[in-house]
Amino acid sequence: MFRKILSFRSQAEGDIIDITPTVKAAVRESGIVDGLVHLFVRHSTAALTTIEYENGVLADLKQSLSRLAPDTISYAHDSRWGDGNGRSHVKAALVGPDITIPVAAGELMCGTWQQIVLLELDTNAGRERTIICTVTGE
Amino acid sequence: MFRKILSFRSQAEGDIIDITPTVKAAVRESGIVDGLVHLFVRHSTAALTTIEYENGVLADLKQSLSRLAPDTISYAHDSRWGDGNGRSHVKAALVGPDITIPVAAGELMCGTWQQIVLLELDTNAGRERTIICTVTGE
Amino acid sequence: MFRKILSFRSQAEGDIIDITPTVKAAVRESGIVDGLVHLFVRHSTAALTTIEYENGVLADLKQSLSRLAPDTISYAHDSRWGDGNGRSHVKAALVGPDITIPVAAGELMCGTWQQIVLLELDTNAGRERTIICTVTGE
Repeated sequence: MFRKILSFRSQAEGDIIDITPTVKAAVRESGIVDGLVHLFVRHSTAALTTIEYENGVLADLKQSLSRLAPDTISYAHDSRWGDGNGRSHVKAALVGPDITIPVAAGELMCGTWQQIVLLELDTNAGRERTIICTVTGE
Repeated sequence: MFRKILSFRSQAEGDIIDITPTVKAAVRESGIVDGLVHLFVRHSTAALTTIEYENGVLADLKQSLSRLAPDTISYAHDSRWGDGNGRSHVKAALVGPDITIPVAAGELMCGTWQQIVLLELDTNAGRERTIICTVTGE
Repeated sequence: MFRKILSFRSQAEGDIIDITPTVKAAVRESGIVDGLVHLFVRHSTAALTTIEYENGVLADLKQSLSRLAPDTISYAHDSRWGDGNGRSHVKAALVGPDITIPVAAGELMCGTWQQIVLLELDTNAGRERTIICTVTGE
């Protein structure tokens, strides 16, 4: 088992960061050739998934997330705490904080148009985000 | 590898149960210090995710799930079987039944405001829910 | 660790394929008795989840996915590339490409009404879909 803490800096709500190159580098550093890499974002207003890293699709995903948790409605979380990030928590819980990708011959087995992305969902911009990367295998 | 069956009792549709303390105890019991804990709810009308366990956010999440699968529309599942839980199945499939959390120094590596939760989505209240907990590592 | 590449052929957008028997067979072939089976679909317009494999519920799920990413709106991805599958990418990113199921006594620990399904979300019908199946354990 190999573990590495990965850090990313987001600029604004809705940022979608392609973390594939960083994950690839961590897998290489692990020396593990065949196995699995698990990623977990340890925040309640960020999430992980895979998507084709193309600007059009990324905009489409953001719009769909706003359909799940619109900007225009009021949130109980915001009423109680004045945080303004109720929608961020909801989106993060629905997309989920973790993903596992298979590794073969030292490489990620993602599809050609399938990148691993970190979704910055918080309304407070400019955050340091921590992802725990765990590689298991042989 | 360490395995433990965890049981939880829900009271009503929409219950969100913080299972973090039970998962922590299972990890401690496993004796595994560095690794991963995998959780799987073996029901098709319940789901697992992470969220800040704060009443406002929990209410917001429920509302968002009702936007995905409204109470007010008719479901093909209900028409055929008279179950009344078509919406429960849909929500569960979208959120998903499993989650994996990293473990270091015998502790869950969740964020401070990030709890692991079981979503009771069934319309039939008062259910016993089984989660299979698997801890792997060293 | 045991790995097998699983292939499935879809016919049309919205196909939901029950892959449980194929996964069961792979677990049996692995010879692993207690552990975990990880599944990853290496495409950005397909997804994996669990659901009761009943026609009514499957239709309900499709309708809910169309609420997330309607057929009737325009997508930035389609405007740029003329692909017509913007909605497919969005749905796939929200449901997610991977799932992990516990294995005990050589069997999947799914619930009785909980099948593992591949969602074909692409608008271009008749695709070969690859799922990477990794079994770990003892």
